[in-house]
Amino acid sequence: MIVDSALYRGGERIELDCAPHDYATLRSGVREDGDFVWLGLYQPSETELSEVAEAFEFHALAVEDAYVAHQRPKLERYGESLFFVLKTLWYVDEDDAVETGEVNVFLGRDYVVTVRHGRGSRLGAARHLLEGEHDILMRGPFSAVYALTDFVVDGYLGVLGELTTDVDEVETSVFSDERTRDSARIYRLKRELAEVRRAVVPLRDPIRRLATVEASLGSLDPKQELRPYFRDVLDHLNVATEQVESLDSLLSSAFEAHLARISLQQNDDMRKISAGAAIVVVPTLIAGVYGMNFTHMPELGWQFGYAYALLLMVGSAIGLWVWFHKSGWL
Amino acid sequence: MIVDSALYRGGERIELDCAPHDYATLRSGVREDGDFVWLGLYQPSETELSEVAEAFEFHALAVEDAYVAHQRPKLERYGESLFFVLKTLWYVDEDDAVETGEVNVFLGRDYVVTVRHGRGSRLGAARHLLEGEHDILMRGPFSAVYALTDFVVDGYLGVLGELTTDVDEVETSVFSDERTRDSARIYRLKRELAEVRRAVVPLRDPIRRLATVEASLGSLDPKQELRPYFRDVLDHLNVATEQVESLDSLLSSAFEAHLARISLQQNDDMRKISAGAAIVVVPTLIAGVYGMNFTHMPELGWQFGYAYALLLMVGSAIGLWVWFHKSGWL
Amino acid sequence: MIVDSALYRGGERIELDCAPHDYATLRSGVREDGDFVWLGLYQPSETELSEVAEAFEFHALAVEDAYVAHQRPKLERYGESLFFVLKTLWYVDEDDAVETGEVNVFLGRDYVVTVRHGRGSRLGAARHLLEGEHDILMRGPFSAVYALTDFVVDGYLGVLGELTTDVDEVETSVFSDERTRDSARIYRLKRELAEVRRAVVPLRDPIRRLATVEASLGSLDPKQELRPYFRDVLDHLNVATEQVESLDSLLSSAFEAHLARISLQQNDDMRKISAGAAIVVVPTLIAGVYGMNFTHMPELGWQFGYAYALLLMVGSAIGLWVWFHKSGWL
Amino acid sequence: MIVDSALYRGGERIELDCAPHDYATLRSGVREDGDFVWLGLYQPSETELSEVAEAFEFHALAVEDAYVAHQRPKLERYGESLFFVLKTLWYVDEDDAVETGEVNVFLGRDYVVTVRHGRGSRLGAARHLLEGEHDILMRGPFSAVYALTDFVVDGYLGVLGELTTDVDEVETSVFSDERTRDSARIYRLKRELAEVRRAVVPLRDPIRRLATVEASLGSLDPKQELRPYFRDVLDHLNVATEQVESLDSLLSSAFEAHLARISLQQNDDMRKISAGAAIVVVPTLIAGVYGMNFTHMPELGWQFGYAYALLLMVGSAIGLWVWFHKSGWL
Amino acid sequence: MIVDSALYRGGERIELDCAPHDYATLRSGVREDGDFVWLGLYQPSETELSEVAEAFEFHALAVEDAYVAHQRPKLERYGESLFFVLKTLWYVDEDDAVETGEVNVFLGRDYVVTVRHGRGSRLGAARHLLEGEHDILMRGPFSAVYALTDFVVDGYLGVLGELTTDVDEVETSVFSDERTRDSARIYRLKRELAEVRRAVVPLRDPIRRLATVEASLGSLDPKQELRPYFRDVLDHLNVATEQVESLDSLLSSAFEAHLARISLQQNDDMRKISAGAAIVVVPTLIAGVYGMNFTHMPELGWQFGYAYALLLMVGSAIGLWVWFHKSGWL
Repeated sequence: MIVDSALYRGGERIELDCAPHDYATLRSGVREDGDFVWLGLYQPSETELSEVAEAFEFHALAVEDAYVAHQRPKLERYGESLFFVLKTLWYVDEDDAVETGEVNVFLGRDYVVTVRHGRGSRLGAARHLLEGEHDILMRGPFSAVYALTDFVVDGYLGVLGELTTDVDEVETSVFSDERTRDSARIYRLKRELAEVRRAVVPLRDPIRRLATVEASLGSLDPKQELRPYFRDVLDHLNVATEQVESLDSLLSSAFEAHLARISLQQNDDMRKISAGAAIVVVPTLIAGVYGMNFTHMPELGWQFGYAYALLLMVGSAIGLWVWFHKSGWL
Repeated sequence: MIVDSALYRGGERIELDCAPHDYATLRSGVREDGDFVWLGLYQPSETELSEVAEAFEFHALAVEDAYVAHQRPKLERYGESLFFVLKTLWYVDEDDAVETGEVNVFLGRDYVVTVRHGRGSRLGAARHLLEGEHDILMRGPFSAVYALTDFVVDGYLGVLGELTTDVDEVETSVFSDERTRDSARIYRLKRELAEVRRAVVPLRDPIRRLATVEASLGSLDPKQELRPYFRDVLDHLNVATEQVESLDSLLSSAFEAHLARISLQQNDDMRKISAGAAIVVVPTLIAGVYGMNFTHMPELGWQFGYAYALLLMVGSAIGLWVWFHKSGWL
Repeated sequence: MIVDSALYRGGERIELDCAPHDYATLRSGVREDGDFVWLGLYQPSETELSEVAEAFEFHALAVEDAYVAHQRPKLERYGESLFFVLKTLWYVDEDDAVETGEVNVFLGRDYVVTVRHGRGSRLGAARHLLEGEHDILMRGPFSAVYALTDFVVDGYLGVLGELTTDVDEVETSVFSDERTRDSARIYRLKRELAEVRRAVVPLRDPIRRLATVEASLGSLDPKQELRPYFRDVLDHLNVATEQVESLDSLLSSAFEAHLARISLQQNDDMRKISAGAAIVVVPTLIAGVYGMNFTHMPELGWQFGYAYALLLMVGSAIGLWVWFHKSGWL
Repeated sequence: MIVDSALYRGGERIELDCAPHDYATLRSGVREDGDFVWLGLYQPSETELSEVAEAFEFHALAVEDAYVAHQRPKLERYGESLFFVLKTLWYVDEDDAVETGEVNVFLGRDYVVTVRHGRGSRLGAARHLLEGEHDILMRGPFSAVYALTDFVVDGYLGVLGELTTDVDEVETSVFSDERTRDSARIYRLKRELAEVRRAVVPLRDPIRRLATVEASLGSLDPKQELRPYFRDVLDHLNVATEQVESLDSLLSSAFEAHLARISLQQNDDMRKISAGAAIVVVPTLIAGVYGMNFTHMPELGWQFGYAYALLLMVGSAIGLWVWFHKSGWL
Repeated sequence: MIVDSALYRGGERIELDCAPHDYATLRSGVREDGDFVWLGLYQPSETELSEVAEAFEFHALAVEDAYVAHQRPKLERYGESLFFVLKTLWYVDEDDAVETGEVNVFLGRDYVVTVRHGRGSRLGAARHLLEGEHDILMRGPFSAVYALTDFVVDGYLGVLGELTTDVDEVETSVFSDERTRDSARIYRLKRELAEVRRAVVPLRDPIRRLATVEASLGSLDPKQELRPYFRDVLDHLNVATEQVESLDSLLSSAFEAHLARISLQQNDDMRKISAGAAIVVVPTLIAGVYGMNFTHMPELGWQFGYAYALLLMVGSAIGLWVWFHKSGWL
């Protein structure tokens, strides 16, 4: 599906009187270095994508990748065009889960084609923001790449913010006085962090290449004026990476503390059980003693022998209770 | 055993009227740069292999490696020929196990010889696919290497898909309410992942060298047009590596959660046991009390003393039961 | 808020007769290479900061970073100016916690602008110290950067000293004979160390670049005479990094020892409980024996049968007690 | 002790009519580039070694290293000679242990001196094999180094094969249904693997330098024709390294599984114990009930009251047993 | 305190007729390249050190470092002089602890000044040894650095030898049949190893720079003839590093084995306890049975009923004992 298609000239969006898929007309509007066509697709059908591919002369391998999706983040050069893959992430509140989408970008001297997969992360917002920044927009198709990556990486930071809240909750639960069963939740959070890591970490290399003077892009380098912007994105990406690592190691520590807590709990429970047992067993012994059948047992004939025995039992129970508390056993 | 042997000229398979082992005739059919002979062997005997080695002038060390098998994936240059080792993997459904084979490739300017060991991974499929891609096939013997590696790496991804299912099953089992004994299964999966890692990780260096301009291959470099294809294989290999790491760390986390679960289970069981004990031991104490032989024990003479005692026992048992549940002990 | 603003000429602070925000007058006082204006801001409002940014021509991205704060430590070049971010740390005694602030530095050929966020770490002290070191001060604006980093890194070492004390306390607690619950405290210390690490480790790269001849700063390099000073700061930073790693691994070991201690404690408690149970249960058996109703039980008729039975009970209890101690069970 | 000393000329062993320690005569037999003297020593006395050192002009530091032994594997250049240290390993069946020896090699343009320490790994076999390979032998003294390293590295693979068997045994034991105590054995195997790692890993750098064109050896480089042979040794060394890592991580996993098993065992045992206790304690309660002294207890007067009580006891025991099995407790 | 001060000329110690602190006279005795003054200080006062610093023109930062001590091992160049910091280690038998000192070295073209902190590691021995090695001594001030580092690194190996003994003891203790509490000791050893690591690992970089041709020292390089000696020191340092890593990982494994042992011990103890309980509880049940008050209980009237009951009790106890042993429970 074609979401949006437009020509950008001298930092302005030019409305041409043509159908969104009239790629030839759009491209013919390009006058100077820095003008470009931006075509936005959402989960295109095979035929849609192959029409675009033909119009802009994409490499067959890149087209296949863009159709199938499920790639790692990467930046490849095919002849006179670049192919850029990045993952989008969003947090689904209903099930406290992180979901993943994918954006594929084809970039040439005078065009950018973005192919989005997955529900979340509408890129229209990024395009809209960029259209307000003429100074950046006039630097050619890489300005669209900047707008995109900036938007996507901000999305990472948002997701990490949600996960930080989740980790804080787990932490509170682990150190609460309740009997909690946090291991399943810690496991699920670890799994989601791993997903975030798979999106964040491999993206650093492509962004670094865009942020610095790197031979591998040849004459397709972004303009000098755009480099600080990509460096800024790289900085945010590094913050995201650091947060992933930090949350992951917090989760590991929380899990270990959880284990220690289970052991301590068991120890406490065992001491409570043994104290309870003692409080029952000692009176049982006393009852056993006065249940013996010796002919000569003076207490048995006492007027208040029974009351005395009951007092002895209650007294021993209370005595044990006090002693357990005083000795630090309970 | 010679599985297939053919001459490829200008991107087409040429059927020559000669025996499959008439290597001289086959090679004499080579006309231009890009034509080559592809000889496919399956677990050749020592004599078969040495005949081939003589015909194509292989280095003695490479021949020994190809005969013995059990090498690490590697790409070596011996004078005017390359020797390439890669591991094949396949999943045996019957015993949920991963098996390993090996492919050795000898490559010269005008020939490719592939030597396969192990049951799985028929390479005929790869050859067949390549024969349909004339554009690639006409780029010379490295096109066969591409077809092979692409096929083998796709096999890795298939095996990893099966293992992912297994890991998901283990995960479900670990977090189920049943008493499960997952450690042996986790261990076996870790072992199989280690096998996959041994195939996948060391292959990255050879593929990277084929995908980029690398001096160590000298004049034997694959043609420029083939590089994107090897880069694509490298990408898939990176996806495989990432999956291996990810599954491995999931298994580790699952194992830890399994340990935590055992501890929690033990704690729960201990509390259940102690509650059960209390429910028996307190009535026993009561029975002991009325088993005492004091002369003056009013209850003993009551008409319904016995019933009263039994009620006391049942009542204390029920009372304890309720109390254990209310206090959160059970 | 403008905290201080001054002109430094030839290693001396020059008092100009102008308002602190009269940046043009201040800069016009610069005569020679090495003279500079140092402007110190504390959590400036957006308008304050944008006025400064306009006067000194900062890059928009750097200004945004300085306003928002929450950056990683970094050193960026924007055209003819540098942007330097570093974290400040201080220890709050009341809650044994580490707090974090941030300092952003803009540096040009003839000015330094420092923007401080967060309560702690007043930079006035660093400025004051530097004003006493004319030899350093005359080396231009980088001398202010040196004074700042030296001050901030000394702060790190101070915080690490406090954390070392905390770790020593935890260690004493873990190996004491008391029943302690150290896991929450170890967790909190680990969390604080992680915060320190996030300040310390990423600062090493910027300082290293200032300490060595590094192309990426272009003509904005600090003077040769200042390099040993930055190397000295780098050394202290390395000491800090080493301490962070060392404390972290001590905490991990302490946590493991804590776990081992819990297990041992449980084992000891279990042996104590079982011994206590035996001491009660064996006399109960004896009482049971003499509670049997056989017609012919000689002891029952003895004059001192009851005393004999009691002695038997006490004796068996004492005997068990002695035996448990001798056999190493208690 | 001089084990063997010979002159090799044009790939053939030449028997000279002189004493084994007549080094001057031996060296005078060298005619062309590629001829060399090979002197083999076994734990030489200080005087023996210093005589050799004088004859061949070794560097004092190398001689000291060769006498003392206990070096790390390394390859050093001292002026016009090389000093090469490698570890030998062999498996002692009687005590399932790995033992370590050391070989020191001095190499000059026309000589090789090998000094062996430790019982195992006779090098005579390597020399014998090499004497059959004239093509290699004629490439000068490095051919002896190749023969040696090939022999020693094959020894590593043999030892690792034995350790693999041991690890398999441990694995079987850990997952058997027996109560096993594998931690001591796992520990010992880890210790032995560490010893193997100390021999294998540091040897990779020297072999890599011999296998590739490396400036640090200057004019003492092995001949071009020998490089593939050293690359082959390097390959085997990499296989060995991979096996060490793989066995080590298997042992770690096996240890963890062992721990999980102990916990599960304890849990099972605890449930068995509690079931056993219940089966005894419930009949005891019944006996206690009929031991009460109430005047009015109808059962006491029944003809078969006793049998009824016994049946009740046995029945409750059997009932509990069945219930424990049905509920999954046992 | 000045410990020793001397002039070395042509590899010989020259006794000049001047006070030890008459630095000018000492330096005036230098004739040729390779002659130098060696001044040894022990915990100098601030004034002592500043006198020396003035006489030899040290950089202020280096002087401050040397006075304060507590630096990381490092090698810095300040203009025409080098500043070298290394840690000394020694083992205190009385408390099985490792102590740390520090040596700071200032080196110029014609002098070496060594400043020692901490009780252990008298450097006089190193100086004495060097004075016997004229060939080395004549190579200038770096020969003193060699003598020092060789001496200090030998000290590391000595300390590691002692720690190896301690680790062996811990290992024996962990696998003994006694109930041991090794975690505190393992923790302390880990802590001491960490101290050794902090001395050993950062020293590798300075020594490597002295052992190889390294631009960063400029014209202050040690002479070519001294390089093999520094390489020898580097080798010993690598051995030390390897031992540190190896001991550390042995301690970790021993700790894990200790944990496993505690668990197994607990399991064994629990089985012993339950067996003991059964042996008491079953006779108690029998006693309870014959304590019942049924009118018709034939055994009660038997002549030897009592003896029979006692036999039944003893028999059941023995029977259980045998059964527990046969079934592998004990």
